[in-house]
Formats: sequence, structure tokens, C-alpha cells
Amino acid sequence: MPKRIEVRISGFGGQGVVLAGEILGRAAAYEGKYVVQTQSYGAEARGGTARSEVIISDGKIDFPKVRKCDILVAMSQNALETHLKDLKEKGVLIVDKDKVEHLPETKAKVFKIPATKTAAKLLKSRLYANVIMLGALTKITGIVKEKAVEKAITDSVPETAREANIRGFRKGLKRVAT
Amino acid sequence: MPKRIEVRISGFGGQGVVLAGEILGRAAAYEGKYVVQTQSYGAEARGGTARSEVIISDGKIDFPKVRKCDILVAMSQNALETHLKDLKEKGVLIVDKDKVEHLPETKAKVFKIPATKTAAKLLKSRLYANVIMLGALTKITGIVKEKAVEKAITDSVPETAREANIRGFRKGLKRVAT
Repeated sequence: MPKRIEVRISGFGGQGVVLAGEILGRAAAYEGKYVVQTQSYGAEARGGTARSEVIISDGKIDFPKVRKCDILVAMSQNALETHLKDLKEKGVLIVDKDKVEHLPETKAKVFKIPATKTAAKLLKSRLYANVIMLGALTKITGIVKEKAVEKAITDSVPETAREANIRGFRKGLKRVAT
Repeated sequence: MPKRIEVRISGFGGQGVVLAGEILGRAAAYEGKYVVQTQSYGAEARGGTARSEVIISDGKIDFPKVRKCDILVAMSQNALETHLKDLKEKGVLIVDKDKVEHLPETKAKVFKIPATKTAAKLLKSRLYANVIMLGALTKITGIVKEKAVEKAITDSVPETAREANIRGFRKGLKRVAT
């Protein structure tokens, strides 16, 4: 594991991209890492693409420099096309395959997760696609421990939504055969 | 008012620097602005300086470039010394005068707010120094409307803490004679 890992989570407003970033950042902090988390609100978040960045490091982090990211999560075609250029050449790309129809050519390691359909079918709401993606990310990359993410979910969402979010996260862990 | 305003709020872990940034970002979003908000968690937040950045714009924001900020809030001597170099030459500097003993030479417009003492005396807890600073910032700079900040406080803090936070914010509005 490198000393510093940059993750970008992207999609459109309302998909919970910012919450997913907050949960991931919090989980890493619980493990004693240094974390910088960046999020977009407002007009941008309501309209087109939404994004959230998490920088996780074993050491102190200089305030965010614009760099290539190691891991890109894309939850819409538009987000994928906007952000793919910022992914490192051999980075990890995780897409919601229900939202991404066309995958541009890339040397990244690509994982396609049926997050939106799984959320709609098993959890009765597309709103949980974000935690399913987070589960897949956790399983694929191992950058945070499962227990830390579950604690971060518990501490980040209202009590009434906890169980469904944790169930979604666990579904995400299982969608990736290891 | 310029098209794009960058605010950095700095202090040490536990002073509510991140929450202050979230409230400010949310308030600006309520006014229809584009907002990017960045925060540090984890080892850094618990240890030395903590910081939070808010970029507010009328238009779409490229992902955060490291630039000079227009407004710097410093809630500790260490934070002031670390971040003053990143303030624009004629920027606005707002310090908690109970936490900053020595002010380095600067061409910035300086405002000294007795935030920690006011919080301890009038609100019985130093924890409200952050919203007092936010009140001062709102009054001095006018970058967000008072009502928007009050709504953002209401939406950002647990119900049991709302009243005290709003009272703190209003104290901050008054500590600056206009």
C-alpha cells in the first residue's frame, strides 16, 4: 500500500457521492490515518456531476494538490467521461454498470458493479447505490477495513437509515468475487 | 464582491474548525452559490493545526487549486503562523484574540475577536468560539447572509445544540461594530 492514496467518487447530484466520501474519510481516520476530504455543494451538486475526493495518508498531508487519483468511482456516464483523464494510468476504476453504458478505452483495472439495480432490487431504493459502491471499493482495494467503514456508516447516517446502509455496504462487499 | 472567494478557517483540533467550514459552505449553497468545501480529519485533526477551506463562487468551480485565500480565520497562534503566508496581501484576517498573542506584521485588514472568552463567559463553553468567529466573519465580509447561516446551523448541528450555536453566532455578529 502506497503512503498516500487519492480516491475520487463521482456521479450526479442525489446519488450520495458526498456522503460516500465522508464515510470513507471517517473510516480511514478511525484507523489512525491522516485524511483530507473535499466535496462540492450547491449549484453544481444539484445540477450535473457531483464529486467527492478523499486523500488518505500515513503521514501529514499538504493541502490538496491537484494530482492524478489512484482510485476512481464513477456512478454516471458523464462523471466517467469527465474524470477518467485524472485517473493514474494503472489506477483502479470502479463503475456502476447500471449507469455507465460505454467505457472509453483505458489501461486502468476496471470493475463493473451493478450498484443501482442491486440497491433497487434488494434494498428497495436506488439511494443505497453509494454504499454498495463503497463496499465494492473496500473489497477491491483494501484501503480501509470493513469494520471501520461500518462504524463510519453508523456515525454518519441518521439512526433510521443505519441498518439499510450497512446492508447495502455488505452487499457491495459480496458483489466482488475474490 | 469578486466572483470567487476563498476562505480558510484554521485552529487546532476540537475547536470546531471543520464544522464552521461546513456551515459556511452550506449557507452559501442555500444562496445558490457553487461551493467546494475541504476538511482535514484524523491524526492531523487530533494533533496540531486543523483547517477547513471553503471556496464560494457564482460560477462553476474547477476542483480546488491551491491559491491565496481572501479571508483567513485563525483560532490559534500556530494556525496563524502556518497560514498567514497563504492570505492575499490585502485580504481579511480574523483572529480569536484570546488564542493569538502575537500578530506578525501584515498588510491584511485585521479583526480581533474575543471569541473564546465570549463563548466561555456568555455560553458557558469554549466550544462555541467557532460560531462566534463565524458571526464575526459574516458581519465583516458579508459573503453570506445572516439568515442563510442560521439555517445552515440549524441543519448542521444536533437539535440539542442548535439554540446555543445560534446564540453564539448572533454574539459574533455583534462583536463587530459597523
